Amino acid sequence: MLPARGYAATAPDAPLAPHAFERRDLGPRDVQIAIAFCGVCHSDLHMARSEWGTTPYPLVPGHEIVGHVTAVGAEVSGFAPGDPAGVGCMVDSCRTCEECGAGLEQFCEQGNIQTYGSIEPQTGKTTAGGYSNTIVVDEAFVLRIAPDADLAATAPLLCAGITTYSPLRHWDVGPGSKVGIVGLGGLGHMGVKLAAAMGAEVVLFTTSEDKIADGKALGAHEVVVSKDRAQMKPHTGSLDLIINTVAASHDLDTYLRLLRRDGSMVLVGVPEHPHPSPSVFMLLSRRRKLSGSLIGGIAETQEMLDFCAERGITSDIEIIPISAINDAYERMLAGDVRFRFVIDMATLEG
Amino acid sequence: MLPARGYAATAPDAPLAPHAFERRDLGPRDVQIAIAFCGVCHSDLHMARSEWGTTPYPLVPGHEIVGHVTAVGAEVSGFAPGDPAGVGCMVDSCRTCEECGAGLEQFCEQGNIQTYGSIEPQTGKTTAGGYSNTIVVDEAFVLRIAPDADLAATAPLLCAGITTYSPLRHWDVGPGSKVGIVGLGGLGHMGVKLAAAMGAEVVLFTTSEDKIADGKALGAHEVVVSKDRAQMKPHTGSLDLIINTVAASHDLDTYLRLLRRDGSMVLVGVPEHPHPSPSVFMLLSRRRKLSGSLIGGIAETQEMLDFCAERGITSDIEIIPISAINDAYERMLAGDVRFRFVIDMATLEG
Repeated sequence: MLPARGYAATAPDAPLAPHAFERRDLGPRDVQIAIAFCGVCHSDLHMARSEWGTTPYPLVPGHEIVGHVTAVGAEVSGFAPGDPAGVGCMVDSCRTCEECGAGLEQFCEQGNIQTYGSIEPQTGKTTAGGYSNTIVVDEAFVLRIAPDADLAATAPLLCAGITTYSPLRHWDVGPGSKVGIVGLGGLGHMGVKLAAAMGAEVVLFTTSEDKIADGKALGAHEVVVSKDRAQMKPHTGSLDLIINTVAASHDLDTYLRLLRRDGSMVLVGVPEHPHPSPSVFMLLSRRRKLSGSLIGGIAETQEMLDFCAERGITSDIEIIPISAINDAYERMLAGDVRFRFVIDMATLEG
Repeated sequence: MLPARGYAATAPDAPLAPHAFERRDLGPRDVQIAIAFCGVCHSDLHMARSEWGTTPYPLVPGHEIVGHVTAVGAEVSGFAPGDPAGVGCMVDSCRTCEECGAGLEQFCEQGNIQTYGSIEPQTGKTTAGGYSNTIVVDEAFVLRIAPDADLAATAPLLCAGITTYSPLRHWDVGPGSKVGIVGLGGLGHMGVKLAAAMGAEVVLFTTSEDKIADGKALGAHEVVVSKDRAQMKPHTGSLDLIINTVAASHDLDTYLRLLRRDGSMVLVGVPEHPHPSPSVFMLLSRRRKLSGSLIGGIAETQEMLDFCAERGITSDIEIIPISAINDAYERMLAGDVRFRFVIDMATLEG
């Protein structure tokens, strides 16, 4: 086994703290990565605090991982030591079911192996995420990163980027589309950038008036303060697609109403408490659709990284030392982040 | 004005009773129809009892209308006296908006003119439905009925038929599709027949064990008693489309779970009380869709009537005299109908 260091949660109410653990030995198809940066996703906090079912402790969170390859197994063909590389939310899947065959490992019928908190088939131990100095991942789940990429600002693409890119692609967004993005956080700011880059007319919906300038700077053609009925009303029946990034329980009808006939609202966050039940009349009256989307497959994640690299799209981030992670969680809960925290792993003490 | 007779509700708690009223004079594009039969839809009951907002009284319900043309206006080209003809849920729309232009008058941006309970533009009076001896309708909203059709059994196609046909077509059902129909009432029994006729594998979900034989006789390849987990489980993640005809509040997750990746559940009934909020996780985990559908446009209604005529598809009905309408409403509420009541208008006293 390979020695590793990181930060872990040890109980739902315990702060994250330094943690020594082991990675599996490098197998023939494995890639070992020295982690340079790891984005901080709201899922990390949910899992660290056991807010989604029972978390296995100790838990090393983090699934927006970028770094450089340090070693490769004998059968690895796509990576060599020194290459920049990324790892997202999944590190393996069954690879044989219909979903995996379709490149949709996120829907693997056997359940994919998540980057942290899953059982690692090779060892039977709990997978450990990117709040650490090194990781060993099967080549098939390692993403290529452009040599000249800003690694820190690229890290959040591995979750926030693909989570918004995938539904924008699945629902065929392009020139002529009018797309709504609800919420301006880590996911929402990537949704605005990506939808605009795809050529859509983008309307950002936020509850916060002081995010209007930010929204426009990110590429939104219009920013609507969703509490203001007068601002909302002109958009009734006009949107082809809404990516709703707000995970807190809220009235979905407020946004369903804005969809045109056959338009879809796609939820990408799971609320701790259910949303109020959506109006059936609202669904019937323009044959509207309510759906969900879950990250994206490995091939699509690579496509997204390439799309972003070609266009110079990265995340807007605030780099923190790993010792600030507990404070960062509190600031994230308070909405005090523009728009993603990224841990500089060089700050992890040896 | 033309004298007309029918049955009307005069208050939410009053039984329907004989009612004399007037139809507008025949305009140049109008068709007058002597009504032979009118189906009894659950909407009739909701509206008669003012259960959906405020009903204008007196109300003559009925929007599953078939009969024979008795007179046509000077500019009418598609109908001649003696022709069989039908009228469904709409008698007019703006005809100029994008939705009307797309043949989707049910989504008319100005709001279509419903067969009963709407304001008739020509007179400013409330439209009166098919529980009556005659009706005057613009040619554009009159449907052609095959000369050899069983008129009584064809009547329910005008609402129950198109309401299930339209989503089956919109979601591209055909050979290779696995379709679930939830509920075996007026809508559900048409859903089973139509989905089977389109070549789909049809699974009927019912709460009632004594509907198993009926479901199979109607064309379902499998009938599942939805209360029985052991019967439900094998269908998890397997259905391409579910047409959910149950308007009573119920747990949608029970059926969402059965959808395969990218599958859709389409609601065609509006519950009086909201359904419990659907699970967001259920939507995310296979990118499932929850949608609604509302009758169908005039062109699609004609397509459905032609589809049914070519294949000998009609509704399974029980013919009643109009004097039995109040009893029929109670029996409908008790689920005691296989599967649609149709009023024989010859029983309306002169």
